[in-house]
Amino acid sequence: MSQFPLVLSLGDPAGIGPELIIQAWREREAKGLMPFVVAGGAQILSQAAEVLEVPAPVQNIASTHEAAEIFADALPVLTGEDGDYLPGAPDVVGAAVAWNSLRQATALVVGGDAAALVTAPIAKGLLEQVGFAYPGQTEFLANACDLPEDAAVMMLAGPSLRTIPLTVHCPLAEVPQRLSTDLIITRGRIVAAALARDFGITQPRLAVTGLNPHAGEDGKFGNEEQAIIAPAIAALLADGITATGPHPADALFSPHSRTGFDAALCMYHDQALIPVKALDFDQGVNVTLGLPIVRTSPDHGTAFDIAGKGAAHPGAMIAAIRMAGLCAARRADG
Amino acid sequence: MSQFPLVLSLGDPAGIGPELIIQAWREREAKGLMPFVVAGGAQILSQAAEVLEVPAPVQNIASTHEAAEIFADALPVLTGEDGDYLPGAPDVVGAAVAWNSLRQATALVVGGDAAALVTAPIAKGLLEQVGFAYPGQTEFLANACDLPEDAAVMMLAGPSLRTIPLTVHCPLAEVPQRLSTDLIITRGRIVAAALARDFGITQPRLAVTGLNPHAGEDGKFGNEEQAIIAPAIAALLADGITATGPHPADALFSPHSRTGFDAALCMYHDQALIPVKALDFDQGVNVTLGLPIVRTSPDHGTAFDIAGKGAAHPGAMIAAIRMAGLCAARRADG
Repeated sequence: MSQFPLVLSLGDPAGIGPELIIQAWREREAKGLMPFVVAGGAQILSQAAEVLEVPAPVQNIASTHEAAEIFADALPVLTGEDGDYLPGAPDVVGAAVAWNSLRQATALVVGGDAAALVTAPIAKGLLEQVGFAYPGQTEFLANACDLPEDAAVMMLAGPSLRTIPLTVHCPLAEVPQRLSTDLIITRGRIVAAALARDFGITQPRLAVTGLNPHAGEDGKFGNEEQAIIAPAIAALLADGITATGPHPADALFSPHSRTGFDAALCMYHDQALIPVKALDFDQGVNVTLGLPIVRTSPDHGTAFDIAGKGAAHPGAMIAAIRMAGLCAARRADG
Repeated sequence: MSQFPLVLSLGDPAGIGPELIIQAWREREAKGLMPFVVAGGAQILSQAAEVLEVPAPVQNIASTHEAAEIFADALPVLTGEDGDYLPGAPDVVGAAVAWNSLRQATALVVGGDAAALVTAPIAKGLLEQVGFAYPGQTEFLANACDLPEDAAVMMLAGPSLRTIPLTVHCPLAEVPQRLSTDLIITRGRIVAAALARDFGITQPRLAVTGLNPHAGEDGKFGNEEQAIIAPAIAALLADGITATGPHPADALFSPHSRTGFDAALCMYHDQALIPVKALDFDQGVNVTLGLPIVRTSPDHGTAFDIAGKGAAHPGAMIAAIRMAGLCAARRADG
């Protein structure tokens, strides 16, 4: 186990990030969480604890080395950007705090002063107004690791299922032309390596979905399965990676089918996210694979509409913290 | 409650249809199933009971009127096309039996001699070789009712969720151009009327999905939400139908979101079927809405690979029989 704590970015301070961090800290013993520290926002977190009327003493620290010692008694927060807790009222001031927290937290993990990064939800539109210029946090992290954006692969992981969307934020109409055999092979290799390294699955079994209904039914409803997907599966198999498919996506996520694979490579956003959110909504974790750092995030947004009311479910944040700790420990042991 | 029994088509005799029918009959009391009769296949069913080593006496009858009386003691089967039970070995001889059984069963329901139709799974490719010339059983049924194919709407229904795929068996690349405001309005009206008439939901709440990830995020990833879907929702609301959306499809099927609607109108096959099969795999029922007859079907295929082994789960067939009985009873009362 690494001697360093996990580091959490604050997320948008007007969203549910601060309260989830506090709730996770309060459940640190019950859930067996490894020590974590928050990058900035000590006052925001103190005010959030007051608003939520939960006891959560916040302690400012100057270095991640101090976190483990005080974690049992207080929520450790690194000196950094700060502000006021204004739940449900997002603005550029708060977005600047979120952006600085993300950069500070990332630098600590990249520099080796934290074991892994857990990011709380941000509002991308607002973050762009204060200088964030990436499609998402995943691409920012690849850049921070001096890697091309496509080196980082997003995986959604819940207790029931792990899925990887091969295309993400593009119109559905563009999905067919964005898919390529190379894309599937490259991502498949990254996923197989990461499942072995970070998840302890020695010979991961990848299921690859079809694009079309019934995986095209032998070319009757589209030919991407034969033209693009099957050759990628053949190439992965030639690499020694256990890959099957193209599978009809509708049946792949049934309870019986799910026992047959460790992760599903899916052709587009909703194909990957519908089953994870249907089955594991309050426990879904977004994991970034393929980077020299470990990073996880709860698979939900800022939820400005319920922020500050104590109504947000901390399950996904706690799952993200647990998963980050486990992945970091496997890397340290590996 | 109608005085007439339900009628079941045999499905492909080499698939799991015969054994599911036998298992459903054996659970008739435990599951409170209303009496049903099978259209043809008495010998096939007798042989299947022998192969499966389950006691299920088959009794040939000439008219649906005889079914209710003997249902407690034997599985009633109407005189009709028959053959041998050859599980796992589909051929055109079996397909002809399946095709005749489907036509016989449909004619009985259309003619008023049966309360509702439950169809067992067929193999469409084989059925086409013996004269079946429809995209699927749903379109055949519309035709048998002297209605255009698009009068019949397929709904998938499980204990957790009901979904309607607005486009079905076409390449994913063609989905955007196949969608139209008219299509959504027409199907929405049929679904709302059917949920009231057949499912007893007085003011059904329809959730309409977006096509693109995050429902396009205000036009950033595609504009079908604004151009096609939102105007349809407005038109349905103007009709007095409770319709909401366009909803991001990935979050719509989470446990919390599912409490907010009675059925989801989905833009394409996998968007509708992934969540139903993930959540309700062994209990998913395919219901045909919009026809003068009630028709249901288990939402799975012939499963030739496991046929005759007693390994097929009868849950979806039993759910289809139960749902057909309930819908028929509501119509009889209505």
